Amino acid sequence: MKRIGVIGGGQLARMMIPAAINLAIELRVFAEQQDAPASLAVTAVGDFRDVRQVADFAADLDALTFDHEHVPAEVLRALEDSGVVVAPSSQALALTHNKVVMRQRLSELGVAQPRWCEVSEASELESAVESVGGYPCIAKKPTGGYDGKGVRVVHSASDLEDWLSQGSLLLEEKVPFVRELALLSARRRGGEWKPWAPVETRQKNGVCSEVIAPAQSLSETQLGVAEELARTIAEGVGTVGVLAVEVFELADGSLSVNELAMRPHNSGHVFTELSTTSQFEQHLRAVADLPLGSAALVAPGGVMVNLFGGVDADAKNDAWERVPEAKIHDYGKGAREGRKVGHVVVTGDDVKSLLDKAELARSALHAAR
Amino acid sequence: MKRIGVIGGGQLARMMIPAAINLAIELRVFAEQQDAPASLAVTAVGDFRDVRQVADFAADLDALTFDHEHVPAEVLRALEDSGVVVAPSSQALALTHNKVVMRQRLSELGVAQPRWCEVSEASELESAVESVGGYPCIAKKPTGGYDGKGVRVVHSASDLEDWLSQGSLLLEEKVPFVRELALLSARRRGGEWKPWAPVETRQKNGVCSEVIAPAQSLSETQLGVAEELARTIAEGVGTVGVLAVEVFELADGSLSVNELAMRPHNSGHVFTELSTTSQFEQHLRAVADLPLGSAALVAPGGVMVNLFGGVDADAKNDAWERVPEAKIHDYGKGAREGRKVGHVVVTGDDVKSLLDKAELARSALHAAR
Repeated sequence: MKRIGVIGGGQLARMMIPAAINLAIELRVFAEQQDAPASLAVTAVGDFRDVRQVADFAADLDALTFDHEHVPAEVLRALEDSGVVVAPSSQALALTHNKVVMRQRLSELGVAQPRWCEVSEASELESAVESVGGYPCIAKKPTGGYDGKGVRVVHSASDLEDWLSQGSLLLEEKVPFVRELALLSARRRGGEWKPWAPVETRQKNGVCSEVIAPAQSLSETQLGVAEELARTIAEGVGTVGVLAVEVFELADGSLSVNELAMRPHNSGHVFTELSTTSQFEQHLRAVADLPLGSAALVAPGGVMVNLFGGVDADAKNDAWERVPEAKIHDYGKGAREGRKVGHVVVTGDDVKSLLDKAELARSALHAAR
Repeated sequence: MKRIGVIGGGQLARMMIPAAINLAIELRVFAEQQDAPASLAVTAVGDFRDVRQVADFAADLDALTFDHEHVPAEVLRALEDSGVVVAPSSQALALTHNKVVMRQRLSELGVAQPRWCEVSEASELESAVESVGGYPCIAKKPTGGYDGKGVRVVHSASDLEDWLSQGSLLLEEKVPFVRELALLSARRRGGEWKPWAPVETRQKNGVCSEVIAPAQSLSETQLGVAEELARTIAEGVGTVGVLAVEVFELADGSLSVNELAMRPHNSGHVFTELSTTSQFEQHLRAVADLPLGSAALVAPGGVMVNLFGGVDADAKNDAWERVPEAKIHDYGKGAREGRKVGHVVVTGDDVKSLLDKAELARSALHAAR
């Protein structure tokens, strides 16, 4: 029986447990506290920044993977040096640790992306802004950002005074996109690679609110471009496991890469119900070096909506009674304003009516708060 | 968060874990050993025949349910007397503890079943055989039988000499069936009841080998009869949780009840992939008194085949490579001749080709042994 370790005990680790059970993989989770969403599989509690603690945990694993991207590069490299199979590797993860490194690598791979440059001093700002197309443009902190945090729309130099005093920034062209897509795929160490159909992601306040799968009205040409783009990145970076590529769709139909994640991703939750193989199962297969499963869709369409704040038991019952086909995934987290605490998936034929049903379930769930 | 206990740590308890995770139910398993298929959720190891041990386990549960039918009636009644919510109740489970009690209760409910009678002495045998239609007929030990054990086809009085010396027997008419079906449904305490579509079960040597879902070519009339029959039993018995009714289909299309189970059942495994709500999720919802999920099918058809003996890792890889859409459920059990160690499900449009794919996967999995 393969033994796979996961650093981080959040909802992504939690949702790997059902997949591990079906695959008969022994899953061990290293969490910051026992009372984590993935508590059922938590076998070690500690600090993932401490090489010794993580090395102890990883000593007898077939491979080590992640629920989040915050494990320091030096910890990953020390593990690799001691013979631990880290998936994805420290080299691949370097792109998700630093957005400047990511832009640089994507440039080398010839992947379409917004114009970008790094700026480290206020004196460089004006020429830097000009090189990405002028104001307004986007500034991002190279490290530590997520869910809209560490990202700012910049209208004038004064918008960046505080941030520039803290360190260098990534400046990006503000791309006039018409829609955001996510390209989910998975890659196995030996090179086997399987993509799911592209999905549309809709954000509110910089956070994913809804996902529509598959993304509607993509042309054959766009589907080909999307697949090529995801494959180029997966192979170019040499990642192992799930790769999520967030892209902008422009008015002319072209695609431009926004962000990357090298793990199961919120935009891929819909595939648990919509595909033969969920992203959690595919990630574990890839990490454990097992053949990838079919990524075919099992229904014409699916919609995922995120739940924020808290999941109240009575509200959940109410939502189930209103929408019996709603799959409500409750991460078992305590309530907190704006916190991602679960999601709802509905699958079927017509995406418009699925969206209505998912919203009906969500409104019942959110009504209690 | 609801806390549900399960007596028994086998594959049925194991497959409740993914459902519990999505529902955010705390699942606690009482097993005979820590190293059980449901080990991830095992919180107590002991003897389920010991009232004190089971009562300790059940002390702070919202409800107690089962992976098997072997908990003695007196243990169940003692738990109920002390206020534990036992689901299904000891009264309902009495039917699965004793096949004579089951036949009696089904007779009272007016449900179609083979002619039957109880025989306790050799001197009564000939008239008893005559009352169920003569030789050949079926003899069953009232208690303890499963998977074809404790069942015998009787051609003459001498076939029963050994068994009759051990205690009374149930004699049943040997029904000339053309096909075996299983009717899966679930009932919540308050009465909410939801059936899945009937499935066809195919046995080899008294053990289920394949399940085809939905059962093909059933008329509207038969579907109505099947639903009425399952509902009559579920309500008449007052069960809580999943009810599996195994029935014979006769040449004239009529249905006759063979066996009952009041828990998730091998014949319902196909619904994990084929229905919006798996039998494990529906069982937990019913037991935890949550609204039942939709039992609609998400694809036109599905096939389940059981795996026996052992699951070899290389053979599993081979099966996945040949049939990437096969969902191979590995129960994590050690190999033993004839042991049920897993199952494979394939869903899609055409049942004939699904059966071919499932058999292809199974033959690859069995090739290694």
